[in-house]
Amino acid sequence: MKEGVRSIGIDDGPFARDSKGDVLVVGAVFKGGTWFDGLLSTKVRKDGWNATDRLVSMLCASKFIRQLHYVILDGIALGGFNVVDLDRLNKETGLKIMVSMRKMPDMRAVKKAVMNLSRWKSRWKMILSAGRIYPVGGIFCQLRGMDENEALELLKLTTTRSNLPEPLRAAHLIAGGLVRGQSGKRA
Amino acid sequence: MKEGVRSIGIDDGPFARDSKGDVLVVGAVFKGGTWFDGLLSTKVRKDGWNATDRLVSMLCASKFIRQLHYVILDGIALGGFNVVDLDRLNKETGLKIMVSMRKMPDMRAVKKAVMNLSRWKSRWKMILSAGRIYPVGGIFCQLRGMDENEALELLKLTTTRSNLPEPLRAAHLIAGGLVRGQSGKRA
Repeated sequence: MKEGVRSIGIDDGPFARDSKGDVLVVGAVFKGGTWFDGLLSTKVRKDGWNATDRLVSMLCASKFIRQLHYVILDGIALGGFNVVDLDRLNKETGLKIMVSMRKMPDMRAVKKAVMNLSRWKSRWKMILSAGRIYPVGGIFCQLRGMDENEALELLKLTTTRSNLPEPLRAAHLIAGGLVRGQSGKRA
Repeated sequence: MKEGVRSIGIDDGPFARDSKGDVLVVGAVFKGGTWFDGLLSTKVRKDGWNATDRLVSMLCASKFIRQLHYVILDGIALGGFNVVDLDRLNKETGLKIMVSMRKMPDMRAVKKAVMNLSRWKSRWKMILSAGRIYPVGGIFCQLRGMDENEALELLKLTTTRSNLPEPLRAAHLIAGGLVRGQSGKRA
């Protein structure tokens, strides 16, 4: 893997559990493991159905799309349970996808939460279709367009400052700092 | 200067020339020249008078205030001509201040622009009170709480990816990516 390979880490901002409406989503583009190269942003409906569409639009409309190779997501859903369709994201952007999870998800708890939401069977089916969860380099991953070896290489290249890939750590800090700044909460 | 010294680069997002209201301002906290450590944000009134108050609140309410040493501003004003009072910012935050400018400002053009705005004499006085402009390490700076030698050290430590201090480059990319993302424009 080239040292300067570009990846984008995508995370959502914090939101109140009883909130409605849109949730901020940011994507931090990195060249290699320490070079911050740009920021993309969009919004997704909390517990809605538009996460895949919004990510595809955000990525394909960006000047970074031609240089990017990898998308790193913090879990399979944004804005609560607005589930990302990994196959569509992979096919419609041409990018390789890694869903990063710090621990093995408790699928029973996930199913219980999903059952409280609209069209829960479709949502649960999307979550299951994300497929096999691999332990890779100390975290857990779901993958599209790459195998475990490539995932391990990507993690080695990008995990430079913490136990998370740098693009994901940056996206998390940026989304959090923005939402808190606008709500006046201490960052 | 310690390698891990923390600085915050502050920049505003893009806005239409004929727009009114608030402009997004973000601050990117860095440890040294490559370690992104966190994000703060606020809003200032376009061509208004609240930039100093907003920056003081943003910085003093943040968990980073105790670790921060330096503030790097991209010019003396945010959101058009919402001028920052460098003395107040320095005294009320306890931080050392560097205003970074890529070229020597054309003061005649600045004065002409300011004369079209409310209370232009007070505004112009604030701009003049920012004081002497030093050429330091290829850019131009106004300083509070530090001398030219310390400014040069700060620039050497933080200018790692371009001809701009990294905290300022990151703040610029983040503010731009957010405003464009929310307006649907290509980033």
